[in-house]
Amino acid sequence: MRATLIYGAGDVRVEDVADPKIQQPTDAVVRVLRSCICGSDLWPYGSMPSQDQGDRIGHEFLGAVEEAGSEVNGLKAGDVVLAPFFYADNTCEYCREGLHTSCPHGGFWATGGVDGGQGEAVRVPYAQGTLVKLPVGEDSALLPSLLTLSDVLPTGHHCAVTAGVNPHTTVTVIGDGAVGLSAVLAAKRLGADQIILMGRHKDRTDLGRYFGATDIVAERGAEGITRVRELTRGFGTHTVLECVGHLPALEMAFGVVRDGGTVSRVGAPQYADGPIGFPFFRRNITLTGGLTPVRAYIDDLLPDVLDGKLQPGRVFDRTIGLDKVPEGYRAMADREALKVLVQP
Amino acid sequence: MRATLIYGAGDVRVEDVADPKIQQPTDAVVRVLRSCICGSDLWPYGSMPSQDQGDRIGHEFLGAVEEAGSEVNGLKAGDVVLAPFFYADNTCEYCREGLHTSCPHGGFWATGGVDGGQGEAVRVPYAQGTLVKLPVGEDSALLPSLLTLSDVLPTGHHCAVTAGVNPHTTVTVIGDGAVGLSAVLAAKRLGADQIILMGRHKDRTDLGRYFGATDIVAERGAEGITRVRELTRGFGTHTVLECVGHLPALEMAFGVVRDGGTVSRVGAPQYADGPIGFPFFRRNITLTGGLTPVRAYIDDLLPDVLDGKLQPGRVFDRTIGLDKVPEGYRAMADREALKVLVQP
Repeated sequence: MRATLIYGAGDVRVEDVADPKIQQPTDAVVRVLRSCICGSDLWPYGSMPSQDQGDRIGHEFLGAVEEAGSEVNGLKAGDVVLAPFFYADNTCEYCREGLHTSCPHGGFWATGGVDGGQGEAVRVPYAQGTLVKLPVGEDSALLPSLLTLSDVLPTGHHCAVTAGVNPHTTVTVIGDGAVGLSAVLAAKRLGADQIILMGRHKDRTDLGRYFGATDIVAERGAEGITRVRELTRGFGTHTVLECVGHLPALEMAFGVVRDGGTVSRVGAPQYADGPIGFPFFRRNITLTGGLTPVRAYIDDLLPDVLDGKLQPGRVFDRTIGLDKVPEGYRAMADREALKVLVQP
Repeated sequence: MRATLIYGAGDVRVEDVADPKIQQPTDAVVRVLRSCICGSDLWPYGSMPSQDQGDRIGHEFLGAVEEAGSEVNGLKAGDVVLAPFFYADNTCEYCREGLHTSCPHGGFWATGGVDGGQGEAVRVPYAQGTLVKLPVGEDSALLPSLLTLSDVLPTGHHCAVTAGVNPHTTVTVIGDGAVGLSAVLAAKRLGADQIILMGRHKDRTDLGRYFGATDIVAERGAEGITRVRELTRGFGTHTVLECVGHLPALEMAFGVVRDGGTVSRVGAPQYADGPIGFPFFRRNITLTGGLTPVRAYIDDLLPDVLDGKLQPGRVFDRTIGLDKVPEGYRAMADREALKVLVQP
């Protein structure tokens, strides 16, 4: 089959790889119907050292079951299924608590001999625990919105939930990428009244307004902090959803959060240490969030996607075939495209 | 009057200073009945550069009102009152939310022309908002336990509350000082079942057991982390109450917390940056706590102290007169005394 490999910064290729096969009785093989490129794929695309062997890549996909192993119950060939960006057994102590990303049997796609999502098919470990059956056909118009349930929508939701967003909290969302926009959608869904979106790309912040942002702040750094404080009687917001992942975004989050408030991060930190010394402590700020346990949120979010109440698929502004994936990376890295949908 | 001044590391003196007087109609003057030395006083005692003019010091005291300003309602001469370690108006938006440490009129004792607590008397700003009237006489045997309500008991309680301690959480308390022991007491009061106290001083950890600790871990660093994990089926505890304030304690806290758990800090951080990068993020750890809004917790804790259900005054293992305060600092710095009570 064809699948995407990354060889280094700026070097993504689509090549022939071995067809996936059932290896364990708990595996399934899924033919990919839709995949996409994630903002987090752009980190290695921006900085990965060049190597001779390519690494598989891609962690968001939905597809149709081709074959299920002998110990996989409840799934059969032809079922349309969604895969969270992290596979997990869904039976261990952490999974039962809703922290699937700490499942001892779990893992990331495209690592340790597991397929990536940007390909024609994927062997899915712990398929019964990992995959969620979708009540739609292979040609459903909802597939783009459903695909966001593999990562960006639950990630925005995780950010809002861990931050404690509710009808009494004001919210700042930092970042106008697909996760930031999903965080706006999630904050709105949780009842937040004031949602300030910090972002500089008008087409994206326009979509943010559509999703529920009440204010847009294009400024960054000290100027951005001043603007948010002007919008909140000098206080800052009770919650800040940091959807970028680099240190200036975190510093800005600490600048716009209200004393006693919460900063939640869902963008993987691109730094080792952060400013959590006395000024942070003095103000009773809470830092939370983390790697999203997608599987824990799907039952809650899926109905709103199926009935069209949420339309997170609007983050996709370009659709390409698998062979155009390298061009998709370039377009996202150059900020020409917000999020690229891949139809193998 | 006599009051304590610090001139630099290891250099604490008791000297004559001006008697406190009402300066604002919202002030009161309080004659100090009991004061004490705090673990946080040991930071400047350990490292403050030497200076020609001494700085006032001390932030824990209770006393009797000598005079109340014309705008102070509800307090009169002779009332026995408690002062939180931070004064505040108790009427602003932050105070009404219970975050008195962010009160724009609030401040620390012994700074900006305000008296310190380790003296014979104190001018109290915003006296009506700051002081809590105690239903006891000047000779009450409860004074030591009541004095802990000015700092260490609410601080341990803030740590436990912000960490989310409840009957379903396991707890690690890092630090066997007066705050750590108060955190044990608070965690027990909130219903925690397993409370692991990390500390190396047997007399202190014995008091910790009396307060409710179920396990004592004397080891530190990697060894300490291993021990806590052995006590928790490999998982670590849901909550960690970090009551020390230096970086190795925070690193240990991150090592013993369960994935998805919460580390709360109440020891003022003696570092500017901490390890909150990908490994912290990966495990969905929450970092919370901060400077304790003591005033917000007194109504909840006071009844349990008055009826003897809580006996936090047991942290005092030495009582001295005001002129012996320098000796009290030395004894605490040398770990001869756990916490020193001062009776001016």
